[in-house]
Amino acid sequence: MLTDDFAEIADDGSIAVVAEVMGGVDPAGGYVLELLSRGKNVVSANKQLVARRGAELFAAASAAGVQLRFEASVCAAIPVIKVLRESLVVTNVHRVLGIVNGTTNFVLTEMEAGKTYDEALAEAQARGYAEADPTDDVSGADAAAKMAILATVAFNSRVPIEDVSTTGITAIDPLDVAAARELDMVIRLVGTARLVDGRYDVRVQPALVDKQHPLAKVDGAFNAVMLQGDAIREITLEGPGAGGLETASAVIADITSVIGTMGTGFLQNDAAWRELPRLPSGESRSPFYFRLSVEDRPGALARVAEGLAEHEISIARLLQHQNGTGASLHVVTHEARMGALDDALDDLGKLPEVHRRSQPLPVVSDRGVTELGWA
Amino acid sequence: MLTDDFAEIADDGSIAVVAEVMGGVDPAGGYVLELLSRGKNVVSANKQLVARRGAELFAAASAAGVQLRFEASVCAAIPVIKVLRESLVVTNVHRVLGIVNGTTNFVLTEMEAGKTYDEALAEAQARGYAEADPTDDVSGADAAAKMAILATVAFNSRVPIEDVSTTGITAIDPLDVAAARELDMVIRLVGTARLVDGRYDVRVQPALVDKQHPLAKVDGAFNAVMLQGDAIREITLEGPGAGGLETASAVIADITSVIGTMGTGFLQNDAAWRELPRLPSGESRSPFYFRLSVEDRPGALARVAEGLAEHEISIARLLQHQNGTGASLHVVTHEARMGALDDALDDLGKLPEVHRRSQPLPVVSDRGVTELGWA
Repeated sequence: MLTDDFAEIADDGSIAVVAEVMGGVDPAGGYVLELLSRGKNVVSANKQLVARRGAELFAAASAAGVQLRFEASVCAAIPVIKVLRESLVVTNVHRVLGIVNGTTNFVLTEMEAGKTYDEALAEAQARGYAEADPTDDVSGADAAAKMAILATVAFNSRVPIEDVSTTGITAIDPLDVAAARELDMVIRLVGTARLVDGRYDVRVQPALVDKQHPLAKVDGAFNAVMLQGDAIREITLEGPGAGGLETASAVIADITSVIGTMGTGFLQNDAAWRELPRLPSGESRSPFYFRLSVEDRPGALARVAEGLAEHEISIARLLQHQNGTGASLHVVTHEARMGALDDALDDLGKLPEVHRRSQPLPVVSDRGVTELGWA
Repeated sequence: MLTDDFAEIADDGSIAVVAEVMGGVDPAGGYVLELLSRGKNVVSANKQLVARRGAELFAAASAAGVQLRFEASVCAAIPVIKVLRESLVVTNVHRVLGIVNGTTNFVLTEMEAGKTYDEALAEAQARGYAEADPTDDVSGADAAAKMAILATVAFNSRVPIEDVSTTGITAIDPLDVAAARELDMVIRLVGTARLVDGRYDVRVQPALVDKQHPLAKVDGAFNAVMLQGDAIREITLEGPGAGGLETASAVIADITSVIGTMGTGFLQNDAAWRELPRLPSGESRSPFYFRLSVEDRPGALARVAEGLAEHEISIARLLQHQNGTGASLHVVTHEARMGALDDALDDLGKLPEVHRRSQPLPVVSDRGVTELGWA
């Protein structure tokens, strides 16, 4: 039976589960809210909706005693939501690290192989990995919605998309791609969600990733999500993060799960969540990479090192390249507070020797997992 | 309440779920069977029990209308059973490829770095990755139990452990490790389960794995399972495949899932399975690697190539190394029928030029996934 009349679905008491695959926040959001309020379970593939109005939808589902499932909204058929909610129930997941946008992963992989940003994007469009208007992907908005949902589920809190610090890949400079290669790293759009002293820190931004790190090995348009927790050390799920059949597979799985758990109270724990604060952005800690254009004269490097030391930032690795009249310094720091690095870069920017400075990018190198004993 | 009297559990009508973490087939098997028959749900971490007596246990659970869950029996906290049974419900998984034993993965990784088998095993024991008696791991028996369970769940059939063709790593020759390196591959103990024309083919054996393949990148004692299906292309789950906390995490998750789905009929589909035949071993197809010791004289290679061609086996890559009085030929074939290769090697063994031949090892290189369009 086919209908274009929403009331025919909402008013039909014999319908227990509705799959929402419309996309967009309006009118889908109003529809889903009404369906939940009227006691229907909803399965949604709509990441922007869940990321923007999740708190409201969860509350409506909880009040009506029905389920909202949304596996397909994050990385299509990769079952990361089910795994977080049903398998990792006692693991205290405190860090989620992911490549959750295949388009940008493909573009950056191609740039690494020598293409310019525009060439790589054109190739992604030719292969159908990128839309005609790629804004949502390259701006990081698509990845930010996924990370908001993942953080919400992993930390059992509410993380609205507005709280995801987001930087896209449009400003990636070939100079940085080349420096990354020289450092035995690659540039990837990395999503991170961390619990730091009871506060969440959720980000989507280009990062330098060590070539030995699993995230550097994620192929082309694939996605990967690493879940780190006390009892599991680290579990990684990888696969195609988009696609029609893949999305359909996740929607059907959610419908099956709703039917299988209806009325048992299972996973009605949307009613039990905690309100965590956001970590102030400057408090976020990481090793960082940045680039400075400096005058090629004796003492320039010393002034830069001194300026960093004043903010207690220490240099882990450094590359210096002469180019015509000046030099570019590529700096990798040890772990630093983002606020301290921003202050240091502001000060460095005032030095007469420094002509230009790039935005700092975080560096992902060690796994960040404590090695536990083997029982 | 602590008891060492089984009857106190079996006779207590207020106990709805029992976790079996005893290990071993006896007496655990009898206990689990009795508990199921008496209407108690059982969660088991016991891979040998599920692999050896699964069919009987599933039937008992089904008859009593209770659940048997066994996530912890395969790769500890990596939630591959839940993902297969609840997420990939409409994907027609037709191939499972995995590194499901961390001990052997660690040993082979160390051999690749130059250690002998004995040195590598000693290192694994020193780190607690291998037991004092490592037989179960190095013989492939541990991996075979896991692959039997994975094939049973993935194909919704019954695959007893006796039907898993199993070869361990004890006979791996440093010559093969060196040849693999030269071919830009590594040797790993790979578990495969495939559906071929409605017949299953389940194996655990050392294989040459292309360095670019995801299985070659599985770190040290970690496990990884790749699931390939029509709707999902390929989903990989990776993580620590052993450990006390990890196993406990999986057991608790199963208990939670039982409680959440009790009485709904969800996943009581153990009653609905199909009886698939086993693929005859000779029918299994793969590219293969093998090694021949030949006399170092003109014409030897030609005779070998001719012998292979007679069985319609074509050579993809070849290395020839002189060593003192003779030469060793390292051959990688294109995809071939295992039976044809065995026949060809029997014939080659009769040539006066050929002194010795190794067992053929399968080669894992391409992903084996059809690239689907991106919707």
